[in-house]
Amino acid sequence: MKILLVGGNGTIGRCITAAFQTRGHDIIIAGRNSGSIQVDIASPESIDAMYRQAGVLDAVICAAGTGYYGPFDDMTPALMLPGIQGKLLGQVNLVVAGKPFVRPGGSFTLTTGIAAELPARNGTCVALINGALNSFVLGAAQEMTDGRRVNAVSPGLVEDSAERYGAFFPGYNLVPMDKLVNAYILSVEGAVNGKILKVYE
Amino acid sequence: MKILLVGGNGTIGRCITAAFQTRGHDIIIAGRNSGSIQVDIASPESIDAMYRQAGVLDAVICAAGTGYYGPFDDMTPALMLPGIQGKLLGQVNLVVAGKPFVRPGGSFTLTTGIAAELPARNGTCVALINGALNSFVLGAAQEMTDGRRVNAVSPGLVEDSAERYGAFFPGYNLVPMDKLVNAYILSVEGAVNGKILKVYE
Repeated sequence: MKILLVGGNGTIGRCITAAFQTRGHDIIIAGRNSGSIQVDIASPESIDAMYRQAGVLDAVICAAGTGYYGPFDDMTPALMLPGIQGKLLGQVNLVVAGKPFVRPGGSFTLTTGIAAELPARNGTCVALINGALNSFVLGAAQEMTDGRRVNAVSPGLVEDSAERYGAFFPGYNLVPMDKLVNAYILSVEGAVNGKILKVYE
Repeated sequence: MKILLVGGNGTIGRCITAAFQTRGHDIIIAGRNSGSIQVDIASPESIDAMYRQAGVLDAVICAAGTGYYGPFDDMTPALMLPGIQGKLLGQVNLVVAGKPFVRPGGSFTLTTGIAAELPARNGTCVALINGALNSFVLGAAQEMTDGRRVNAVSPGLVEDSAERYGAFFPGYNLVPMDKLVNAYILSVEGAVNGKILKVYE
Protein backbone atom coordinates (compact mmCIF):
# COMPACT_ATOMS: atom_id res chain seq x y z
CA MET A 1 0.00 0.00 0.00
CA LYS A 2 0.97 3.61 -0.53
CA ILE A 3 0.58 5.22 2.89
CA LEU A 4 0.94 8.89 3.82
CA LEU A 5 2.18 9.30 7.39
CA VAL A 6 1.80 12.78 8.84
CA GLY A 7 4.18 13.19 11.76
CA GLY A 8 6.69 10.51 10.94
CA ASN A 9 9.50 11.88 13.05
CA GLY A 10 7.94 11.59 16.51
CA THR A 11 8.35 8.76 18.99
CA ILE A 12 5.32 6.94 17.64
CA GLY A 13 5.80 7.99 14.00
CA ARG A 14 9.27 6.47 13.73
CA CYS A 15 8.04 3.12 15.03
CA ILE A 16 5.04 3.16 12.68
CA THR A 17 7.37 3.84 9.75
CA ALA A 18 9.69 0.96 10.59
CA ALA A 19 6.83 -1.49 11.14
CA PHE A 20 4.95 -0.65 7.95
CA GLN A 21 8.11 -0.67 5.84
CA THR A 22 8.95 -4.12 7.21
CA ARG A 23 5.48 -5.21 6.10
CA GLY A 24 6.27 -4.08 2.54
CA HIS A 25 4.36 -0.81 2.43
CA ASP A 26 5.48 2.38 0.73
CA ILE A 27 5.54 5.12 3.39
CA ILE A 28 5.54 8.80 2.44
CA ILE A 29 6.35 10.97 5.42
CA ALA A 30 4.92 14.47 5.76
CA GLY A 31 5.88 16.77 8.58
CA ARG A 32 6.41 20.36 9.61
CA ASN A 33 10.19 20.06 9.62
CA SER A 34 10.84 16.50 8.47
CA GLY A 35 9.84 14.05 5.78
CA SER A 36 9.57 14.36 2.02
CA ILE A 37 6.52 16.66 2.09
CA GLN A 38 6.29 19.75 4.27
CA VAL A 39 2.91 20.34 5.90
CA ASP A 40 1.38 22.47 8.63
CA ILE A 41 -1.78 20.58 9.58
CA ALA A 42 -3.18 23.72 11.22
CA SER A 43 -3.55 25.16 7.72
CA PRO A 44 -6.24 23.74 5.39
CA GLU A 45 -4.33 25.21 2.42
CA SER A 46 -1.15 23.39 3.47
CA ILE A 47 -3.08 20.12 3.78
CA ASP A 48 -4.51 20.55 0.29
CA ALA A 49 -1.04 21.20 -1.13
CA MET A 50 0.30 18.09 0.64
CA TYR A 51 -2.40 15.87 -0.85
CA ARG A 52 -1.85 17.24 -4.36
CA GLN A 53 1.86 16.50 -3.98
CA ALA A 54 1.33 12.99 -2.57
CA GLY A 55 -1.15 11.81 -5.21
CA VAL A 56 -3.53 8.88 -4.84
CA LEU A 57 -3.16 6.98 -1.55
CA ASP A 58 -4.31 3.76 0.04
CA ALA A 59 -4.11 5.06 3.59
CA VAL A 60 -3.42 8.16 5.65
CA ILE A 61 -2.05 7.96 9.19
CA CYS A 62 -1.64 10.98 11.44
CA ALA A 63 0.69 10.79 14.43
CA ALA A 64 1.23 14.55 14.64
CA GLY A 65 -0.01 17.25 16.93
CA THR A 66 -0.09 18.12 20.57
CA GLY A 67 -1.92 20.52 22.84
CA TYR A 68 -1.49 22.76 25.88
CA TYR A 69 -0.32 20.97 28.99
CA GLY A 70 -0.48 23.07 32.12
CA PRO A 71 -2.56 23.98 35.15
CA PHE A 72 -6.23 24.47 34.44
CA ASP A 73 -6.15 27.75 36.36
CA ASP A 74 -3.68 29.15 33.81
CA MET A 75 -5.51 27.86 30.74
CA THR A 76 -6.73 30.60 28.41
CA PRO A 77 -8.38 30.56 24.97
CA ALA A 78 -5.07 31.76 23.48
CA LEU A 79 -3.11 28.87 25.03
CA MET A 80 -5.65 26.36 23.75
CA LEU A 81 -5.71 27.66 20.19
CA PRO A 82 -2.62 25.95 18.68
CA GLY A 83 -3.76 22.49 19.82
CA ILE A 84 -7.33 23.12 18.66
CA GLN A 85 -6.16 24.27 15.24
CA GLY A 86 -3.43 21.62 14.97
CA LYS A 87 -4.09 18.28 16.60
CA LEU A 88 -7.89 18.69 16.62
CA LEU A 89 -8.99 20.52 13.46
CA GLY A 90 -5.80 19.50 11.65
CA GLN A 91 -6.67 15.83 11.95
CA VAL A 92 -10.31 16.53 11.08
CA ASN A 93 -9.20 18.36 7.95
CA LEU A 94 -6.87 15.51 6.99
CA VAL A 95 -10.02 13.39 6.63
CA VAL A 96 -12.33 16.04 5.18
CA ALA A 97 -9.81 17.20 2.57
CA GLY A 98 -8.28 13.77 2.02
CA LYS A 99 -11.34 11.82 0.87
CA PRO A 100 -10.78 12.49 -2.87
CA PHE A 101 -7.15 11.36 -2.59
CA VAL A 102 -7.77 8.03 -0.85
CA ARG A 103 -8.79 5.05 -2.96
CA PRO A 104 -12.12 3.28 -2.34
CA GLY A 105 -11.60 0.91 0.57
CA GLY A 106 -8.73 3.02 1.87
CA SER A 107 -8.44 4.32 5.39
CA PHE A 108 -7.67 7.24 7.67
CA THR A 109 -6.12 6.57 11.06
CA LEU A 110 -5.99 9.43 13.55
CA THR A 111 -4.20 9.56 16.90
CA THR A 112 -6.02 10.58 20.08
CA GLY A 113 -5.10 9.39 23.58
CA ILE A 114 -6.11 8.18 27.01
CA ALA A 115 -6.75 11.76 28.18
CA ALA A 116 -10.16 11.61 26.49
CA GLU A 117 -11.30 9.27 29.25
CA LEU A 118 -8.70 9.65 31.98
CA PRO A 119 -6.93 12.99 31.77
CA ALA A 120 -3.85 13.52 33.90
CA ARG A 121 -3.49 16.68 35.98
CA ASN A 122 -2.74 19.61 33.61
CA GLY A 123 -4.22 17.69 30.71
CA THR A 124 -7.63 19.32 30.26
CA CYS A 125 -6.87 20.86 26.86
CA VAL A 126 -5.50 17.58 25.52
CA ALA A 127 -8.51 15.75 26.96
CA LEU A 128 -10.81 18.08 25.00
CA ILE A 129 -8.86 17.50 21.79
CA ASN A 130 -8.82 13.72 22.14
CA GLY A 131 -12.49 13.52 23.12
CA ALA A 132 -13.45 15.64 20.12
CA LEU A 133 -11.52 13.41 17.71
CA ASN A 134 -12.92 10.19 19.14
CA SER A 135 -16.48 11.40 18.64
CA PHE A 136 -15.61 12.82 15.21
CA VAL A 137 -14.50 9.34 14.14
CA LEU A 138 -17.81 7.81 15.27
CA GLY A 139 -19.76 10.25 13.12
CA ALA A 140 -17.48 10.40 10.09
CA ALA A 141 -17.19 6.61 9.81
CA GLN A 142 -20.94 6.31 9.29
CA GLU A 143 -20.84 8.56 6.25
CA MET A 144 -17.62 7.53 4.51
CA THR A 145 -18.32 6.45 0.94
CA ASP A 146 -17.01 3.65 -1.30
CA GLY A 147 -15.79 1.57 1.61
CA ARG A 148 -13.40 4.17 2.93
CA ARG A 149 -12.81 3.87 6.67
CA VAL A 150 -11.73 6.09 9.54
CA ASN A 151 -10.48 5.04 12.98
CA ALA A 152 -8.65 6.55 15.93
CA VAL A 153 -5.78 4.96 17.80
CA SER A 154 -5.87 6.12 21.42
CA PRO A 155 -2.55 5.44 23.17
CA GLY A 156 -1.85 5.42 26.86
CA LEU A 157 1.66 6.27 28.06
CA VAL A 158 3.98 4.37 25.73
CA GLU A 159 7.08 2.80 27.22
CA ASP A 160 9.34 4.76 24.85
CA SER A 161 8.03 8.01 26.37
CA ALA A 162 8.24 6.92 30.00
CA GLU A 163 11.59 8.52 30.72
CA ARG A 164 10.58 11.92 29.32
CA TYR A 165 6.94 12.08 30.36
CA GLY A 166 6.38 9.41 33.02
CA ALA A 167 6.53 11.87 35.91
CA PHE A 168 3.47 13.66 34.55
CA PHE A 169 1.42 10.45 34.51
CA PRO A 170 1.74 8.83 37.93
CA GLY A 171 0.00 5.47 38.04
CA TYR A 172 -0.50 5.18 34.29
CA ASN A 173 0.43 1.74 33.00
CA LEU A 174 3.12 1.65 30.35
CA VAL A 175 2.02 0.48 26.91
CA PRO A 176 4.48 -1.64 24.91
CA MET A 177 5.26 0.08 21.61
CA ASP A 178 4.62 -3.06 19.56
CA LYS A 179 1.11 -3.24 20.97
CA LEU A 180 0.53 0.37 19.96
CA VAL A 181 1.92 -0.17 16.45
CA ASN A 182 -0.41 -3.15 16.06
CA ALA A 183 -3.39 -0.83 16.50
CA TYR A 184 -2.25 1.21 13.47
CA ILE A 185 -1.76 -2.02 11.48
CA LEU A 186 -5.27 -3.17 12.45
CA SER A 187 -6.75 0.12 11.30
CA VAL A 188 -4.85 0.20 7.97
CA GLU A 189 -4.79 -3.45 6.94
CA GLY A 190 -7.92 -4.64 8.74
CA ALA A 191 -11.59 -3.99 8.05
CA VAL A 192 -12.46 -1.93 11.13
CA ASN A 193 -14.33 1.35 10.71
CA GLY A 194 -15.43 3.93 13.28
CA LYS A 195 -13.41 2.31 16.05
CA ILE A 196 -11.55 3.98 18.89
CA LEU A 197 -8.68 1.53 19.28
CA LYS A 198 -7.79 2.06 22.93
CA VAL A 199 -4.27 0.89 23.63
CA TYR A 200 -4.35 1.16 27.40
CA GLU A 201 -7.03 -1.16 28.68
CA MET B 1 -29.14 30.14 44.90
CA LYS B 2 -28.28 32.82 42.38
CA ILE B 3 -27.97 30.96 39.08
CA LEU B 4 -26.87 32.34 35.71
CA LEU B 5 -28.53 30.46 32.84
CA VAL B 6 -26.98 31.03 29.44
CA GLY B 7 -29.49 30.12 26.74
CA GLY B 8 -32.69 30.45 28.71
CA ASN B 9 -35.00 30.81 25.74
CA GLY B 10 -34.47 27.43 24.06
CA THR B 11 -36.60 24.33 24.47
CA ILE B 12 -34.47 23.06 27.33
CA GLY B 13 -33.66 26.49 28.80
CA ARG B 14 -37.30 27.42 29.34
CA CYS B 15 -37.96 24.17 31.23
CA ILE B 16 -34.83 24.64 33.35
CA THR B 17 -35.94 28.17 34.24
CA ALA B 18 -39.41 27.05 35.32
CA ALA B 19 -38.09 24.14 37.38
CA PHE B 20 -35.41 26.09 39.21
CA GLN B 21 -37.75 29.02 39.92
CA THR B 22 -40.27 26.58 41.39
CA ARG B 23 -37.47 25.34 43.64
CA GLY B 24 -36.93 28.87 44.93
CA HIS B 25 -33.81 29.83 43.01
CA ASP B 26 -33.03 33.22 41.51
CA ILE B 27 -32.45 32.71 37.78
CA ILE B 28 -30.65 35.31 35.69
CA ILE B 29 -31.04 34.59 31.99
CA ALA B 30 -28.32 35.53 29.50
CA GLY B 31 -28.72 35.06 25.78
CA ARG B 32 -27.86 36.38 22.37
CA ASN B 33 -31.29 37.87 21.80
CA SER B 34 -33.18 37.17 25.01
CA GLY B 35 -32.82 37.43 28.75
CA SER B 36 -31.65 40.25 30.99
CA ILE B 37 -27.99 40.07 29.91
CA GLN B 38 -26.90 39.97 26.29
CA VAL B 39 -24.03 37.60 25.53
CA ASP B 40 -22.33 36.02 22.52
CA ILE B 41 -20.60 32.97 23.97
CA ALA B 42 -18.33 32.76 20.91
CA SER B 43 -16.65 35.93 22.18
CA PRO B 44 -14.43 35.74 25.29
CA GLU B 45 -14.85 39.52 25.72
CA SER B 46 -18.63 39.19 25.70
CA ILE B 47 -18.44 36.41 28.31
CA ASP B 48 -16.25 38.59 30.55
CA ALA B 49 -18.71 41.48 30.24
CA MET B 50 -21.60 39.16 31.10
CA TYR B 51 -19.91 37.93 34.27
CA ARG B 52 -19.05 41.46 35.41
CA GLN B 53 -22.69 42.43 34.93
CA ALA B 54 -24.06 39.34 36.71
CA GLY B 55 -21.85 39.58 39.81
CA VAL B 56 -21.13 36.76 42.23
CA LEU B 57 -22.98 33.53 41.43
CA ASP B 58 -23.73 30.17 43.02
CA ALA B 59 -24.07 28.33 39.74
CA VAL B 60 -23.76 28.72 35.99
CA ILE B 61 -25.79 26.60 33.57
CA CYS B 62 -25.31 26.69 29.82
CA ALA B 63 -28.06 25.40 27.54
CA ALA B 64 -26.95 27.43 24.52
CA GLY B 65 -25.14 26.61 21.34
CA THR B 66 -25.46 24.33 18.37
CA GLY B 67 -23.28 23.11 15.52
CA TYR B 68 -23.35 22.23 11.83
CA TYR B 69 -25.83 19.52 10.89
CA GLY B 70 -25.41 18.24 7.36
CA PRO B 71 -23.84 15.58 5.17
CA PHE B 72 -20.26 14.74 6.07
CA ASP B 73 -19.31 15.06 2.41
CA ASP B 74 -20.31 18.74 2.48
CA MET B 75 -18.62 19.52 5.81
CA THR B 76 -15.87 22.14 5.54
CA PRO B 77 -13.72 23.92 8.13
CA ALA B 78 -15.78 27.08 7.50
CA LEU B 79 -19.08 25.31 8.22
CA MET B 80 -17.67 23.83 11.43
CA LEU B 81 -16.31 27.10 12.78
CA PRO B 82 -19.43 28.68 14.34
CA GLY B 83 -20.18 25.55 16.40
CA ILE B 84 -16.54 25.16 17.44
CA GLN B 85 -16.34 28.80 18.55
CA GLY B 86 -19.82 28.82 20.08
CA LYS B 87 -21.05 25.60 21.66
CA LEU B 88 -17.56 24.13 22.14
CA LEU B 89 -15.14 26.93 23.05
CA GLY B 90 -17.98 29.13 24.28
CA GLN B 91 -18.89 26.62 26.98
CA VAL B 92 -15.21 26.04 27.80
CA ASN B 93 -14.73 29.78 28.23
CA LEU B 94 -17.81 30.02 30.45
CA VAL B 95 -15.91 27.82 32.91
CA VAL B 96 -12.42 29.26 32.38
CA ALA B 97 -13.58 32.87 32.68
CA GLY B 98 -16.29 32.17 35.23
CA LYS B 99 -14.22 30.67 38.05
CA PRO B 100 -13.62 34.01 39.82
CA PHE B 101 -17.35 34.81 39.73
CA VAL B 102 -18.63 31.54 41.18
CA ARG B 103 -18.62 31.09 44.96
CA PRO B 104 -16.59 28.29 46.56
CA GLY B 105 -18.69 25.14 46.32
CA GLY B 106 -20.57 26.50 43.32
CA SER B 107 -20.98 24.73 40.05
CA PHE B 108 -20.87 24.90 36.28
CA THR B 109 -23.25 22.74 34.26
CA LEU B 110 -22.64 22.43 30.52
CA THR B 111 -24.84 20.82 27.90
CA THR B 112 -23.47 18.22 25.50
CA GLY B 113 -25.54 15.43 23.91
CA ILE B 114 -25.92 11.84 22.80
CA ALA B 115 -24.03 12.56 19.55
CA ALA B 116 -20.76 12.24 21.47
CA GLU B 117 -21.39 8.50 21.67
CA LEU B 118 -24.06 7.81 19.08
CA PRO B 119 -24.10 10.47 16.38
CA ALA B 120 -27.02 10.51 13.97
CA ARG B 121 -26.39 10.76 10.24
CA ASN B 122 -25.28 14.35 9.43
CA GLY B 123 -24.20 14.85 13.04
CA THR B 124 -20.40 14.54 12.85
CA CYS B 125 -19.69 18.16 13.73
CA VAL B 126 -22.03 18.07 16.72
CA ALA B 127 -20.49 14.75 17.78
CA LEU B 128 -17.06 16.38 17.81
CA ILE B 129 -18.34 19.30 19.89
CA ASN B 130 -20.09 17.09 22.44
CA GLY B 131 -17.17 14.68 22.74
CA ALA B 132 -14.79 17.56 23.31
CA LEU B 133 -16.93 19.03 26.08
CA ASN B 134 -17.41 15.69 27.84
CA SER B 135 -13.66 15.14 28.02
CA PHE B 136 -13.08 18.78 29.01
CA VAL B 137 -15.35 18.25 32.01
CA LEU B 138 -13.35 15.18 33.10
CA GLY B 139 -10.13 17.18 33.10
CA ALA B 140 -11.41 20.49 34.47
CA ALA B 141 -13.26 18.86 37.38
CA GLN B 142 -10.00 17.44 38.72
CA GLU B 143 -8.46 20.89 38.99
CA MET B 144 -11.36 23.03 40.19
CA THR B 145 -10.48 24.81 43.43
CA ASP B 146 -12.36 25.59 46.64
CA GLY B 147 -14.95 22.89 46.05
CA ARG B 148 -16.19 24.31 42.79
CA ARG B 149 -17.63 21.67 40.49
CA VAL B 150 -18.22 21.16 36.77
CA ASN B 151 -20.49 18.63 35.06
CA ALA B 152 -22.06 18.04 31.67
CA VAL B 153 -25.65 17.09 31.03
CA SER B 154 -25.83 14.99 27.87
CA PRO B 155 -29.41 14.79 26.54
CA GLY B 156 -30.79 12.37 24.04
CA LEU B 157 -33.75 13.45 21.89
CA VAL B 158 -36.12 15.17 24.31
CA GLU B 159 -39.82 14.64 23.84
CA ASP B 160 -40.46 18.37 23.46
CA SER B 161 -38.21 18.37 20.36
CA ALA B 162 -39.62 15.23 18.79
CA GLU B 163 -42.02 17.00 16.44
CA ARG B 164 -39.34 19.35 15.05
CA TYR B 165 -36.31 17.07 15.01
CA GLY B 166 -37.55 13.50 15.39
CA ALA B 167 -37.24 12.71 11.68
CA PHE B 168 -33.48 13.30 11.88
CA PHE B 169 -33.08 10.78 14.73
CA PRO B 170 -34.79 7.56 13.65
CA GLY B 171 -34.77 4.98 16.42
CA TYR B 172 -33.65 7.37 19.15
CA ASN B 173 -35.70 6.93 22.31
CA LEU B 174 -37.55 10.02 23.51
CA VAL B 175 -36.34 11.45 26.82
CA PRO B 176 -39.00 12.91 29.15
CA MET B 177 -38.24 16.58 29.84
CA ASP B 178 -38.63 16.17 33.62
CA LYS B 179 -35.91 13.51 33.58
CA LEU B 180 -33.61 15.88 31.69
CA VAL B 181 -34.34 18.78 34.04
CA ASN B 182 -33.51 16.50 36.98
CA ALA B 183 -29.99 16.09 35.62
CA TYR B 184 -29.46 19.87 35.83
CA ILE B 185 -30.88 19.88 39.37
CA LEU B 186 -28.51 17.04 40.34
CA SER B 187 -25.54 18.96 38.98
CA VAL B 188 -26.47 22.26 40.64
CA GLU B 189 -27.89 21.17 44.00
CA GLY B 190 -26.05 17.86 44.36
CA ALA B 191 -22.41 17.11 45.11
CA VAL B 192 -21.41 15.52 41.81
CA ASN B 193 -18.24 16.72 40.05
CA GLY B 194 -16.70 15.68 36.74
CA LYS B 195 -19.76 13.69 35.72
CA ILE B 196 -21.26 13.26 32.27
CA LEU B 197 -24.92 12.97 33.21
CA LYS B 198 -26.24 10.93 30.29
CA VAL B 199 -29.98 11.35 29.94
CA TYR B 200 -30.58 8.69 27.35
CA GLU B 201 -29.53 5.34 28.81
